[in-house]
Amino acid sequence: MFAPDELTDDGFLGGRLRVLQPGRGYRAATDPVFLAAAVPARPGQSVLELGCGAGVASLCLAARVPGLRLAGLEVQPAYAELARVNAARNGVSLEVVEGDLAAMPPVLRRSFDHVIANPPYYPAGGGTGATDPGRERAMREDTPLGLWIEAAVRRLAPRGILSLIFGADRLPDALSALDARMGSIAVLPLQAREGRAAKRVILQSRKGGRAPFRLLPPFLLHEGACHEGDGESFTPPAAHILRNGGDFPFRLI
Amino acid sequence: MFAPDELTDDGFLGGRLRVLQPGRGYRAATDPVFLAAAVPARPGQSVLELGCGAGVASLCLAARVPGLRLAGLEVQPAYAELARVNAARNGVSLEVVEGDLAAMPPVLRRSFDHVIANPPYYPAGGGTGATDPGRERAMREDTPLGLWIEAAVRRLAPRGILSLIFGADRLPDALSALDARMGSIAVLPLQAREGRAAKRVILQSRKGGRAPFRLLPPFLLHEGACHEGDGESFTPPAAHILRNGGDFPFRLI
Repeated sequence: MFAPDELTDDGFLGGRLRVLQPGRGYRAATDPVFLAAAVPARPGQSVLELGCGAGVASLCLAARVPGLRLAGLEVQPAYAELARVNAARNGVSLEVVEGDLAAMPPVLRRSFDHVIANPPYYPAGGGTGATDPGRERAMREDTPLGLWIEAAVRRLAPRGILSLIFGADRLPDALSALDARMGSIAVLPLQAREGRAAKRVILQSRKGGRAPFRLLPPFLLHEGACHEGDGESFTPPAAHILRNGGDFPFRLI
Repeated sequence: MFAPDELTDDGFLGGRLRVLQPGRGYRAATDPVFLAAAVPARPGQSVLELGCGAGVASLCLAARVPGLRLAGLEVQPAYAELARVNAARNGVSLEVVEGDLAAMPPVLRRSFDHVIANPPYYPAGGGTGATDPGRERAMREDTPLGLWIEAAVRRLAPRGILSLIFGADRLPDALSALDARMGSIAVLPLQAREGRAAKRVILQSRKGGRAPFRLLPPFLLHEGACHEGDGESFTPPAAHILRNGGDFPFRLI
């Protein structure tokens, strides 16, 4: 459990969400917000978030789409507890289950319309520079991306949709891990600035989908050629997602 | 063999290359030109083109980089003969070998610094609408993309570079086919117009490379939001490649 003085109280979606996070641990930034904005969920559908951390992606999704049935799996007990607290603070019903996706807890062995995840960033042994064990666990690749995808695909209902956000350098691993059960794959590169290689991608795929793979044009996050001092300089479509809890201006699949 | 009246005499690279092609068969357009422009070959290096057709990619590469040792493999005898004729007409030394990449002719069982290919477009049974058997063979996927890649990787010298151009919808197949021998993969989406999904991609990878996968920003081919009548409306960097035999304004890997 985190002590109260270890936590910060942060606003997301222009302050619509208030989220407690460890000041020094893994801290959600824009990734879970973009992930949530990409999920084409409809009211009444079920959603499982693998590795939900403090719950930011699921809570952002709940803020955008009412009436979802939300569940989150989290391996670190302190983060799972924080997700429960954050859900309650924001009036969201989120079933948080402690456990490892490589040994799915029986209570989650059911089908979902959507499975979403923001898997950890860094390859095992790659060195994160993180000095906080919780942050390190949240950012290190203890579980290969292929296992995240395998666990996600298993939990998807027929025609269910997988939505992931991860580092662009892991796209080959992700595409190799999507087997014949998954189709209609779309990849949206998130490009920090015009002319740069994409650092992050959102991948979406439908179980039983048959549409061809699509590589979408990059979604530009920042305006200008370089970081401009204190200003955030998000592009209007990016700011719409981050500050208004808006959608992407298109569907991925 | 093609009869003379079956052939057209087409200019490439602003007329620097003259290439005989069957009027009704598979006809090279921009793909082999972009492929050749992406290959980071240096004078004196060896290059193998798999499925060289009438030879356009290899001849464009020869026009850009002097002193290469060029070989091409082509399964259709009439196209192989045409590649020989086209090489001679343009004063290029190109060793054209007839054969199937799934059963590599012994004369080509050696190592190359570069292997390049523009594999056929359409999945087997997908229906190309082509009525010409040669065109159909050249555009149909008789040989899965994975076999092209396997044959190419086998022919690469250590540190050798693979360069491919293919439909963006086949990116998952291509990435899955690149095994642990290949690294430093870069993917360049070729985007017809601003805001469109990429239809074609160039993939490059180094045998024994260790750099992370990179998804480059799209290379824009046309200006304007839609096709403007008779005008070609290529962007200046695309026109530089197609008309001047120029390079891409960056290296892929």
